[in-house]
Amino acid sequence: MIKATITVKLKPGVLDPQGEAVKKALHTLGFDEVSDLRIGKTMEVWLSADDPAQAEERVQAMCEKLLANPVIETYSFSVEEGL
Amino acid sequence: MIKATITVKLKPGVLDPQGEAVKKALHTLGFDEVSDLRIGKTMEVWLSADDPAQAEERVQAMCEKLLANPVIETYSFSVEEGL
Repeated sequence: MIKATITVKLKPGVLDPQGEAVKKALHTLGFDEVSDLRIGKTMEVWLSADDPAQAEERVQAMCEKLLANPVIETYSFSVEEGL
Repeated sequence: MIKATITVKLKPGVLDPQGEAVKKALHTLGFDEVSDLRIGKTMEVWLSADDPAQAEERVQAMCEKLLANPVIETYSFSVEEGL
């Protein structure tokens, strides 16, 4: 079993309305020191595979085809064996 | 300026309908080796603060009060200076 941890973030400069809303809520709660806040996704994917190199290729394909929108998002991932 | 990176995940055992939907979509695209998929949030928070220890306390308070639902979620975070 192999576990991949994928992080998908909005590209710099892309508006993050969700992040803006959370920032405003934090200000309302008195956390005025928050100057900016960006929200992204983290995905843990368990793969019934044994070869980490092959798993990395497959995870990259998953990101390119479905998990990340290349127009507005960037992705990064790591792969761990034996989980 | 201090940057905190916060990761919020569903607790083990808590149903993740979004993760299930993405897993099914990956299967449809031919990624049958995906046995499980869990989705969480990652937040980058920029703080106009200088003391990392104090920043850590504030970020913990933000998580407890707003950013993570303690009933179904766990959170972890790291703090970096000078960003």
